Amino acid sequence: MTVRERCEAAKAHAHAIAFTGEDGMNGMLIAAAGALREHADHIIAENKKDIERCTRGPQFTDRLMLDEKRIDGIAEGLEKLVELKCPVGEIMEERTLYNGLRLTRVRVPLGVIGIIYEARPNVTADAIGLAIKSGNAIVLRGSKDAVRSNAAVTEVIKNALRDRGFDPEFIQLIEDTTREGATEFMRMNGIVDVLIPRGSASLIQNAVQNATVPIIETGTGNCHLYFETSADIGKAIPILINAKTQRTSVCNACESLLIDEDFALKHLKEIVSALREKNVEIVACEKCRKILPELAAATEEDYYTEFLSLKISVKIVGGVEDAIAHINRFGTHHSDGIITENEAAAEKFLDEVDSAAVYVNASTRFTDGFEFGMGAEMGISTQKLHARGPMGLKELTSYKYCIRGDGQIRG
Amino acid sequence: MTVRERCEAAKAHAHAIAFTGEDGMNGMLIAAAGALREHADHIIAENKKDIERCTRGPQFTDRLMLDEKRIDGIAEGLEKLVELKCPVGEIMEERTLYNGLRLTRVRVPLGVIGIIYEARPNVTADAIGLAIKSGNAIVLRGSKDAVRSNAAVTEVIKNALRDRGFDPEFIQLIEDTTREGATEFMRMNGIVDVLIPRGSASLIQNAVQNATVPIIETGTGNCHLYFETSADIGKAIPILINAKTQRTSVCNACESLLIDEDFALKHLKEIVSALREKNVEIVACEKCRKILPELAAATEEDYYTEFLSLKISVKIVGGVEDAIAHINRFGTHHSDGIITENEAAAEKFLDEVDSAAVYVNASTRFTDGFEFGMGAEMGISTQKLHARGPMGLKELTSYKYCIRGDGQIRG
Repeated sequence: MTVRERCEAAKAHAHAIAFTGEDGMNGMLIAAAGALREHADHIIAENKKDIERCTRGPQFTDRLMLDEKRIDGIAEGLEKLVELKCPVGEIMEERTLYNGLRLTRVRVPLGVIGIIYEARPNVTADAIGLAIKSGNAIVLRGSKDAVRSNAAVTEVIKNALRDRGFDPEFIQLIEDTTREGATEFMRMNGIVDVLIPRGSASLIQNAVQNATVPIIETGTGNCHLYFETSADIGKAIPILINAKTQRTSVCNACESLLIDEDFALKHLKEIVSALREKNVEIVACEKCRKILPELAAATEEDYYTEFLSLKISVKIVGGVEDAIAHINRFGTHHSDGIITENEAAAEKFLDEVDSAAVYVNASTRFTDGFEFGMGAEMGISTQKLHARGPMGLKELTSYKYCIRGDGQIRG
Repeated sequence: MTVRERCEAAKAHAHAIAFTGEDGMNGMLIAAAGALREHADHIIAENKKDIERCTRGPQFTDRLMLDEKRIDGIAEGLEKLVELKCPVGEIMEERTLYNGLRLTRVRVPLGVIGIIYEARPNVTADAIGLAIKSGNAIVLRGSKDAVRSNAAVTEVIKNALRDRGFDPEFIQLIEDTTREGATEFMRMNGIVDVLIPRGSASLIQNAVQNATVPIIETGTGNCHLYFETSADIGKAIPILINAKTQRTSVCNACESLLIDEDFALKHLKEIVSALREKNVEIVACEKCRKILPELAAATEEDYYTEFLSLKISVKIVGGVEDAIAHINRFGTHHSDGIITENEAAAEKFLDEVDSAAVYVNASTRFTDGFEFGMGAEMGISTQKLHARGPMGLKELTSYKYCIRGDGQIRG
């Protein structure tokens, strides 16, 4: 099927999934989870073929790889969605207008969600699960590298739904993994209601530049920690090490450290050795290098860079105002934190840093749907329109106004 | 100043307007309203120059024209915003997470709003007022035809703010009214947070096709009324006449009437004469023409058309299911209504018509920020992302997560 045919098929079934009801949705999720476990061997065999063909190096292969344990984790993710409340039909507002019209604002699914993503086959199942529980049709477009894995996961889930008497055609996987196919997918106006690109900065920029359907930018995270002069070094270093090193390839990892000058004079050495103990490569500003001349010099480009590796930029700033200005200029409005014992500085930072998630005395690694208690996420929005931060079930909905009258006309 | 310079100037002042506080905002609105009245003569004189140059016909000139009464109405609109609550800073959600992190979701302005609009200079003041009370910077790009009027309105307001000690540079009017300038404006990623096109379908489509910043589609309204078989003809005809004729050039006017067959057999003649009494031109389906052979034939294109004039398409349908399918296919997801005394039909229509506002026994003309009790509107969204229906102050905001900890790290 062509890209357009896949999208049209999803749209034709959007109505059915929207009106499935919570019991039906939960039945689908349980069936899908069971089938993934039952057919794990088949999925792993197909995944092996993708991996054998893949020549992109071990880090890439690791993200692509599925084994029994990972498949069990994916199935568990679907089962966890059962416990979350379906947002569809929620009455968000109810009023009677001056003329007796009764106005109700009701939460409804977005309709058809498109998702473009890279070689992580778990996203296929996660996205299907979130679509089911939010009442949306979904069109998936994974990467060439994961084509057999994605097909296997989708097929196993669709067959399981069909066996239980559900029509699974609200789930559509695009076979066409060419660049032209992606561009076509980005222009399905009137069919696709929102497109979510998930993956590298270049994938997301490609969507920003080429999509004519509404998109939600996700995931690029040039996240900062700022050690304010009153910071407790006993909190600062563990938070830095956690944010920088606990997992380096994720969008909420710390990429840049800002330090007030007198705090640096006292603690830079200690900070640097804590980072080095974890094998973190450091590039630093001139002021830092005056304190510790052995540090490598940072370029302006470094301050803009999401390293996604064991590398960090370090810069001395002139107080909270300067730190905020730096973050708003060089950051990606994802997650940024201040370490401070000064409440006024904390509140100023919270107010003025223009990011989806702003932290005081905590690791930026918490920006995540599960950590925020939303249960799951379709990605982390770094734009301000529609949703900001982790996108869970509610963020995959819209609303409509239902107005009940008895003959009202406008005067 | 260039388009980019205007946008950058607005962005540089976004922070100041976001933190002005409600008293300051109200002071600005009152100062702006007073100045518009005080300098009405100047604005009218500049507006006359636009009108003299304009060769687009009387209907166009009427929308462009400003007189003392209209300026007073615009000033009143600004004053009404004083009574509305500023949405900035609202705590939308507050939770303590499992690890003791305190999470607060706070409403914040979008940042920099861009608006592209056609020759209605009142939009200039309305948009500035909404930007002030929602804490947003605003970049205005009106049409060539209204260039002097828009400049006069903007200048009068900015001077009034400056006189009261406010920095008015969060308001920027783009002088460049070329097509290239518009395209440049649509690509100010990283500077403009959202672009709202207001005006004709072609202006909006141009934005959909060319914008790389997030946009909100507004205002194209191919709105339907559906007379279900149980409809009360005493409600049906007044609602139809109101929706079709009270004001024809607006997006929430009715453009198409669907009728159940037996209702048409009984009432089509009466409906047609009521429409003809108001000089409405009718194009109708074959089934209608069997009942009243003198009716002109409708083409498929007619069913897609937003006439914005005294013209309507009429079509006989086979019940509520068929009516819903027609509306979802031919409509623009703006405002659609059913006239019925059958509650099951009404509820089905409310559930399944995929539009921003769905009515039972009322005119579609009510889809409006003022009528919905939102006080004012920046336009009516016909997309599902971010906002749907009238966009008031809340719809011009985003949110951020503020997370307060005492050293939490992710395990």
